Amino acid sequence: MHFASDNAGIVHPQILAALSEANQGFAMAYGNDEVTKAAQERLRTLFESPLAEVFFVPTGTAANALALASFTQPFQTVYCTPLAHIQEDEANAPEFFTGGAKLTLVGAQDKMQPSDLRAALERSEQRGVHGAQAGPVSITQVTEFGQVYTLDELSALTEIARAFGVPVHLDGARFANACATLNCSAADMTWKSGVDVACFGGTKNGCMGVEAVVIFNPDLAQSFQLRRKRAGHLFSKQRYLAAQMLGYLENDLWLSLAKQSNQNCAYLASKLRGVAGVEFDYAPEANLIFCNFPTDMHTRLMAAGAQYHVTTAPADARQSARLVCDWSISTAQIDAFVAAMTD
Amino acid sequence: MHFASDNAGIVHPQILAALSEANQGFAMAYGNDEVTKAAQERLRTLFESPLAEVFFVPTGTAANALALASFTQPFQTVYCTPLAHIQEDEANAPEFFTGGAKLTLVGAQDKMQPSDLRAALERSEQRGVHGAQAGPVSITQVTEFGQVYTLDELSALTEIARAFGVPVHLDGARFANACATLNCSAADMTWKSGVDVACFGGTKNGCMGVEAVVIFNPDLAQSFQLRRKRAGHLFSKQRYLAAQMLGYLENDLWLSLAKQSNQNCAYLASKLRGVAGVEFDYAPEANLIFCNFPTDMHTRLMAAGAQYHVTTAPADARQSARLVCDWSISTAQIDAFVAAMTD
Amino acid sequence: MHFASDNAGIVHPQILAALSEANQGFAMAYGNDEVTKAAQERLRTLFESPLAEVFFVPTGTAANALALASFTQPFQTVYCTPLAHIQEDEANAPEFFTGGAKLTLVGAQDKMQPSDLRAALERSEQRGVHGAQAGPVSITQVTEFGQVYTLDELSALTEIARAFGVPVHLDGARFANACATLNCSAADMTWKSGVDVACFGGTKNGCMGVEAVVIFNPDLAQSFQLRRKRAGHLFSKQRYLAAQMLGYLENDLWLSLAKQSNQNCAYLASKLRGVAGVEFDYAPEANLIFCNFPTDMHTRLMAAGAQYHVTTAPADARQSARLVCDWSISTAQIDAFVAAMTD
Amino acid sequence: MHFASDNAGIVHPQILAALSEANQGFAMAYGNDEVTKAAQERLRTLFESPLAEVFFVPTGTAANALALASFTQPFQTVYCTPLAHIQEDEANAPEFFTGGAKLTLVGAQDKMQPSDLRAALERSEQRGVHGAQAGPVSITQVTEFGQVYTLDELSALTEIARAFGVPVHLDGARFANACATLNCSAADMTWKSGVDVACFGGTKNGCMGVEAVVIFNPDLAQSFQLRRKRAGHLFSKQRYLAAQMLGYLENDLWLSLAKQSNQNCAYLASKLRGVAGVEFDYAPEANLIFCNFPTDMHTRLMAAGAQYHVTTAPADARQSARLVCDWSISTAQIDAFVAAMTD
Repeated sequence: MHFASDNAGIVHPQILAALSEANQGFAMAYGNDEVTKAAQERLRTLFESPLAEVFFVPTGTAANALALASFTQPFQTVYCTPLAHIQEDEANAPEFFTGGAKLTLVGAQDKMQPSDLRAALERSEQRGVHGAQAGPVSITQVTEFGQVYTLDELSALTEIARAFGVPVHLDGARFANACATLNCSAADMTWKSGVDVACFGGTKNGCMGVEAVVIFNPDLAQSFQLRRKRAGHLFSKQRYLAAQMLGYLENDLWLSLAKQSNQNCAYLASKLRGVAGVEFDYAPEANLIFCNFPTDMHTRLMAAGAQYHVTTAPADARQSARLVCDWSISTAQIDAFVAAMTD
Repeated sequence: MHFASDNAGIVHPQILAALSEANQGFAMAYGNDEVTKAAQERLRTLFESPLAEVFFVPTGTAANALALASFTQPFQTVYCTPLAHIQEDEANAPEFFTGGAKLTLVGAQDKMQPSDLRAALERSEQRGVHGAQAGPVSITQVTEFGQVYTLDELSALTEIARAFGVPVHLDGARFANACATLNCSAADMTWKSGVDVACFGGTKNGCMGVEAVVIFNPDLAQSFQLRRKRAGHLFSKQRYLAAQMLGYLENDLWLSLAKQSNQNCAYLASKLRGVAGVEFDYAPEANLIFCNFPTDMHTRLMAAGAQYHVTTAPADARQSARLVCDWSISTAQIDAFVAAMTD
Repeated sequence: MHFASDNAGIVHPQILAALSEANQGFAMAYGNDEVTKAAQERLRTLFESPLAEVFFVPTGTAANALALASFTQPFQTVYCTPLAHIQEDEANAPEFFTGGAKLTLVGAQDKMQPSDLRAALERSEQRGVHGAQAGPVSITQVTEFGQVYTLDELSALTEIARAFGVPVHLDGARFANACATLNCSAADMTWKSGVDVACFGGTKNGCMGVEAVVIFNPDLAQSFQLRRKRAGHLFSKQRYLAAQMLGYLENDLWLSLAKQSNQNCAYLASKLRGVAGVEFDYAPEANLIFCNFPTDMHTRLMAAGAQYHVTTAPADARQSARLVCDWSISTAQIDAFVAAMTD
Repeated sequence: MHFASDNAGIVHPQILAALSEANQGFAMAYGNDEVTKAAQERLRTLFESPLAEVFFVPTGTAANALALASFTQPFQTVYCTPLAHIQEDEANAPEFFTGGAKLTLVGAQDKMQPSDLRAALERSEQRGVHGAQAGPVSITQVTEFGQVYTLDELSALTEIARAFGVPVHLDGARFANACATLNCSAADMTWKSGVDVACFGGTKNGCMGVEAVVIFNPDLAQSFQLRRKRAGHLFSKQRYLAAQMLGYLENDLWLSLAKQSNQNCAYLASKLRGVAGVEFDYAPEANLIFCNFPTDMHTRLMAAGAQYHVTTAPADARQSARLVCDWSISTAQIDAFVAAMTD
């Protein structure tokens, strides 16, 4: 009954097998190997972007921070929501990698609102040399609260960015889950919607530790490459990062795992709807559920060994929970979880 | 015939097996898992240092730069040799992670000389507020040219550092090879010789991508932990970093692989001594050979598909080569290499 | 009719005279001169703090950013209000000088509220290694909207900081104006109220360009000194920074100029209260007025050559103005300004 | 008898007068004032470069570090001599302002040699992604040991930079002294000789504290402006920086003061040539003398109250001195100094 994170599950066997397969003979170090080239080519095909530059890094924080650093001057600011991973969960990595750029928090909602973004950008323009200059807009898809931007919603934001002359970064730690929800292509959700650089997450969806950064504007690739190296994120034995990605893309494993975790989430949500006292904080749209229920239910779940994050202080004898569904969680575990709430 | 790097070989099967073994069930993320704790404990035992703090990162650059950043203020300087990896091969990572500290190049030799170190530290003291302030001394063991500091040589350097009140960092990308050469313990080569923080390399010696940073002064651990996170080097699925290390330590695999690569190197060196026209630039002491020979031998080797780095421009129809012996290189390949030189 | 800024007025003759007086013979560079020592000693006396360390820098941004950098690790966050000068008007200087620390915006008001500060610090504590760690609290006195914290209000904030183990910085660009309003001593408003480091502004109050940073905890002075040098803020001819400060302190000029500008402000405010259609956004407490009035009044003022900042977009045919009173503005100019509103 | 530094002398009365003259009425802050515009225009005329961008900062370290930061990516390296001010005397300011770029020390001489520069640039090209990438070349005119590059020597260096595609920075803390020696124009010594950005020093030559940064490639000006602000070097009352520069340029005061200090130096050198036991370490070419003489002469000078820097440890009962001639030092003081050596 482990609903704490999609970072807690196992690596999918197909990915472990890809690692074994890559483990033959000598290979050039630092990405000059055939496995890396093959994985990059596969991603260019997936993204329908033959000129895109593709880089592999081991963590989502590295992917986001390096991507932003390639687009952001140290006297600029990045626009994101107040609860964005880059603001809340990366221990100042964006500030570090950009050399001291600021994060400007847009609005007060989980999904960035076009009117809030426009207001933030207009405000920056008025500050002259005294304020942080306008830099990239960072959008998180799936959001921190499990929402999925529609393609129209994405385009509404990227058009504003375009109008102000700033680039767009997509934090796609759960990229696959969003594609599964929207039933759209990787290209649809990125450059066709106005995204300049996308992080295509693997770690939360069955990989061991790999994220791809896909830069649709190749002018910025040289800087990324050098920044990656100086951040200690250029792997000498890079074939083992790339092999994970190959295994992940093989037979669309990335998409089928995301569908599985979204489906697990939908199943858990349907069960929770049947439990008296459960209220949803957000309608689940991918593999994350935020809901609140009486504290005595929390007590029972803890006693039964359930693992998940309680996200609010108790109020009116209720508390909110974040429940994350991994692709590997079984129906039996979900059933057991729901049973434990009421037992 | 691949002698380009010890980064080009395969992952040892025992390490792949350890990854598979760790791949069971859910585990807490970000290092709060049992595999991580076990690997940390094993290293404390190996280093005979029950209070040491142990961290895992995926690359040697990350290990060095994070270790140095934990000890270095941005207005200080790190002392190293002119050819040290941190100076030559990390694309300004030490400057980046320390927030802009300087590297001061000590002497002009591959092995740092005590008199040169003392002179450099004395010079810093005279600069007052105008110069970079004295910071840590960084020693590379095995050196860039394949030399191994004796324990006495290490102590001679660390005593000077102590006298000037600065800490000592050991870049141990080839830590195991040095232990194998010196036939000493990990403790002998670190805190018993005056080292404050050591990087214990795995990647160049059969791992997929893992280095341990061992901090003997636990006061500095909190800073390391936070700096690692903000650098994107805290793995969510950290059990797979730790599992590599467990597999690496099991039955002293780390030491037996190092002995194997050193032995491969000794075998190649003995063969090269029998080749007319080969001169050694340095006496090989671990798994690296630097030697020069006629350019037509280089031509023959290239034609035969040998892979290695030519390290100097042609002079007097000769050129130097760097030959790195991986644990996985076979005697047959070594024989073929030597044969190709003269065929 | 210049109400745009207290940076626009002239240097007080007494300060120019002090510069001339210091301009005799040779003096040791970089602060090792008698003028600097005398000015430091005067400030220690003024602040009733014999062990305080005192540094001179030329701008408020340098003073704030260097002071914060001496107290803040790069993985920490500084707490300030959303409109604080360090957030809005220093072009990422705090992020730059701290090596990438974050600014956390506390509450939504001009004056920091104790409950908001407590909530922000509690929230940081819950983030573990993933969020920015708690760092200093920065309080601006006089605030951006011209409010003055009472000594009790200051203590309420610093006690919370103390409880969470974080230091307190006071941005005192208008330090003198606040002292004049509160009729308290420099010591009362700083260390006696729990402040660890204070910026004592001179530039906005009749100096040419000098701010003193007074550090009540001398342990942090060495770092400040080195950070100042590496930021290019250690003046070689420092006697001319110090001489301004000596002239500023002589016969309590600092306080009399602040009283004059506060009095000018009070006079303007009293006149504005007599103008139909003027509403105060904040009750003026020092030398700043924020008020709104009909746009046609703005038009008349502009036509008459009045200089001030319009701070809001037009709404209901009204707009807000920021009116800053310099010590050097004459009653006649104030009268002319008010007359121009209605003519 | 003050020969310690050209930072120790007084401000020239003409510059103090310019400050007084600028001290009238209100002026727009942050450089939007008439005095600043006039000073910028004067410098464009002096440099015969109508499109150059001109910025004022208060210290040489700020001028150098900001200029370099505008041209240098954090993964690059700056080329300078081992004793360059930016390497030895700025406490890591270049590393700080560039976000962690490295300084590569070219050759081992006071004057940068073309062959050494070429070798350093060639070496960088061979490092690939692993080493620091090639960045700007920084040339110091007058050098640290008082030498002056001829225009041909300057061009020889800048042509190599051009061939490698890297820009050229001129550290001109003693710009005027070099112009006086070479009897050339400011344009001759900068863009006509291939320099992209020059620091035109005022502080060491009679100003209170002002340096102009002249950028001949205006594309880089926007970045400079923002970096200056975030470094706390944008003065609110900038008219007082600019006024110094106006006073400095009026009637070519900058050049006449430099000629005076060079002449003082020549006079001292001629006197020293008549003292038995004095040997010159370098032939004086501007306002700096490096010479060695018996330690008992040093003792006598110290006893007589002479102030200067002893630059070497005693050897063979001799020690070297650095003697800096300010424009304001009198012939009588020089005579007294020489007399004290032998009395």
